[in-house]
Amino acid sequence: MNDRIGNLGAMERLRIRTGGFTGPTSGLAPGNVQANLVILPKDLAHDFLRFAQANPKPCPVLAVSEAGSPAFPTLGQDLDIRTDLPLYRVWRNGEMVAEPTDVRDVWRDDLVSFAIGCSFSFEEALIEDGIEVRHIACGSNVPMYRTNIATTPAGPFHGPLVVSMRPLKPKDAIRAVQITSRFPSVHGAPVHIGLPHMIGIADINKPDYGDAVPIAADELPVFWACGVTPQAVIAQMKPDFCITHAPGSMLITDLKNTSLAAL
Amino acid sequence: MNDRIGNLGAMERLRIRTGGFTGPTSGLAPGNVQANLVILPKDLAHDFLRFAQANPKPCPVLAVSEAGSPAFPTLGQDLDIRTDLPLYRVWRNGEMVAEPTDVRDVWRDDLVSFAIGCSFSFEEALIEDGIEVRHIACGSNVPMYRTNIATTPAGPFHGPLVVSMRPLKPKDAIRAVQITSRFPSVHGAPVHIGLPHMIGIADINKPDYGDAVPIAADELPVFWACGVTPQAVIAQMKPDFCITHAPGSMLITDLKNTSLAAL
Repeated sequence: MNDRIGNLGAMERLRIRTGGFTGPTSGLAPGNVQANLVILPKDLAHDFLRFAQANPKPCPVLAVSEAGSPAFPTLGQDLDIRTDLPLYRVWRNGEMVAEPTDVRDVWRDDLVSFAIGCSFSFEEALIEDGIEVRHIACGSNVPMYRTNIATTPAGPFHGPLVVSMRPLKPKDAIRAVQITSRFPSVHGAPVHIGLPHMIGIADINKPDYGDAVPIAADELPVFWACGVTPQAVIAQMKPDFCITHAPGSMLITDLKNTSLAAL
Repeated sequence: MNDRIGNLGAMERLRIRTGGFTGPTSGLAPGNVQANLVILPKDLAHDFLRFAQANPKPCPVLAVSEAGSPAFPTLGQDLDIRTDLPLYRVWRNGEMVAEPTDVRDVWRDDLVSFAIGCSFSFEEALIEDGIEVRHIACGSNVPMYRTNIATTPAGPFHGPLVVSMRPLKPKDAIRAVQITSRFPSVHGAPVHIGLPHMIGIADINKPDYGDAVPIAADELPVFWACGVTPQAVIAQMKPDFCITHAPGSMLITDLKNTSLAAL
């Protein structure tokens, strides 16, 4: 257990595992990568991984578990995927049937876990560069929109790209393209800037997920591919069984955000 | 002379030097760096170089000559700055007094030459990535605008930043930020995108230099710092004597555009 000394990720996971923390994970273990979680039966896992491979901007895969194993050794040596998130969602036939703090009772030997990169990592890089991230400043959830951009289908997985939006002054938007381009494994560069109707967004003040945020007259809306895309795609294809994280209750890993920088 | 075989830059300079070519240099020696030229008396050279150092986006210096020397060995071994451009402008007290094809007759032992990076280099990189550069497609000069952004003054050199504009679809604008960020020595990343009134441009259809180009409804105007900035600043401070290239008649070097990529 000594290797856990100074390991903020492991400390937070232990606190969550033992019931000491139940809220959203934003701000926990600063500097550490947090991840979206998708757990699917093995018979869907290969097509889902093909879907992610074909759509790396919305679905940047950080790690894939062995079937049936709750371990994710590349993300944290002690990690138990069944207990280490504050809140899960359990889905049956596309319906959410439970929102537990632990999924050991529904665990199966055929489940494969996917850890998918999350915008928290690049938002930290933006903030460190002095760029305000509006929804964080507002204390709200990031606004997200279904677009008219189709993902590349794979097997039963298909559907529209979901994007998140952050309003930025033009010079910050240019800087944000540079900064987020360095982080391809957490959505990378924006997919759109400035003209939301071009990507099928009718009303920027009515996001499909999350909360609307104010956009000033001297700002452009900047759009990134969003990790909600795989969840929206899964919800649409209604697998028999699936587990995901609950929104905002992410998997805290031992990876450092800075280690994801491609250059 | 054998080292000139296969050296397109040296071949084109020889053709220009011997009167075999007098037009604009766009398209000559494709792949080779072309440069803006500013020649100033030595007593102004240090302040001008300080100005360029303080304003690297509009004034990226590729090379500075020895005082009185017409050579630029880092840009081309045979290069003679007095003869190797198709057309020059000679300025006295801020007025253009001649537009010769050769400046040997006005050459002085106290002149210092500055080769300054030019957007031709990054435009080549954009086109190679499949992005249309509008003014090239239109066969016109790039539209340029004086902005409300002040350059950092140095000695007598001061004035507004001049920008060039290229209209791009949002996804191409994002790609263009990535591509031009790799070329800091030829103006680098854009300085503005999308909201021209913010930088003091009242009418995008009325550029201060160059020609207006059409902007489609699904495009954003993207602005880069422009090599016309140092010339505008020099015109404003009216030095006793100065030589520049004539617009479009650039210095062709032996450097390769690809060699300027920072990463």
